[in-house]
Amino acid sequence: MSRYQRHLFICENRRPSGHPRGCCAERGSEEVRSAFKKALKERGLAGLVRANAAGCLDTCELGVTVVVYPEGVWYGGVRVEDVEEIVQRHVVGGKVVERLLQPGVGQLNEPVPLPPLPGRGDHKT
Amino acid sequence: MSRYQRHLFICENRRPSGHPRGCCAERGSEEVRSAFKKALKERGLAGLVRANAAGCLDTCELGVTVVVYPEGVWYGGVRVEDVEEIVQRHVVGGKVVERLLQPGVGQLNEPVPLPPLPGRGDHKT
Repeated sequence: MSRYQRHLFICENRRPSGHPRGCCAERGSEEVRSAFKKALKERGLAGLVRANAAGCLDTCELGVTVVVYPEGVWYGGVRVEDVEEIVQRHVVGGKVVERLLQPGVGQLNEPVPLPPLPGRGDHKT
Repeated sequence: MSRYQRHLFICENRRPSGHPRGCCAERGSEEVRSAFKKALKERGLAGLVRANAAGCLDTCELGVTVVVYPEGVWYGGVRVEDVEEIVQRHVVGGKVVERLLQPGVGQLNEPVPLPPLPGRGDHKT
């Protein structure tokens, strides 16, 4: 398999203060990524799923932007409080979190649940 | 569909000079990403395929690291001189560039050729 079963990219681009497009960094993307890393580590998923920093994902107005591959699902307006739901429902359970989807954007592949971890049995979804 | 048919992430992480793992930035990742952007733009693919900066992809010793989604193909040791081949053969043609694959890493999905661009007919692969 590839290095990760799922790979999350969280935009950490920072623009000068007052820029008309805004930026994900000023909306708290570093804290969002830290929350993803913590949630994945707590579930023993750090080696299977990576929460990566990304440069500008070009949806600044919709930030904090998070894109999840291989399915190509784009989330917008993601806050620290949303991280548990994305990890539990999408990353583990293979179901998209509809309320956070960027409007009008489809996906490339249907998400599937993660396979059970050795010795841990089924993930609770 | 998702925002992009293919999404390339080029590690631009920079470590302090002399760090034992090295880093992609000191191996020229910014120039590699610029070359990808130029090659995509020249083919009219800038809206379909994005060459994105990424934070550390954790394969520092194998850099410059480039991962291509949705297929989850990991390339290593990528130089500016390799960019045309990756764009033409993989991004457009849907065929992996075997000689640049990171050793021992599989993929998540089989790459497929890009659909023809409106008004441009088939891509030459």
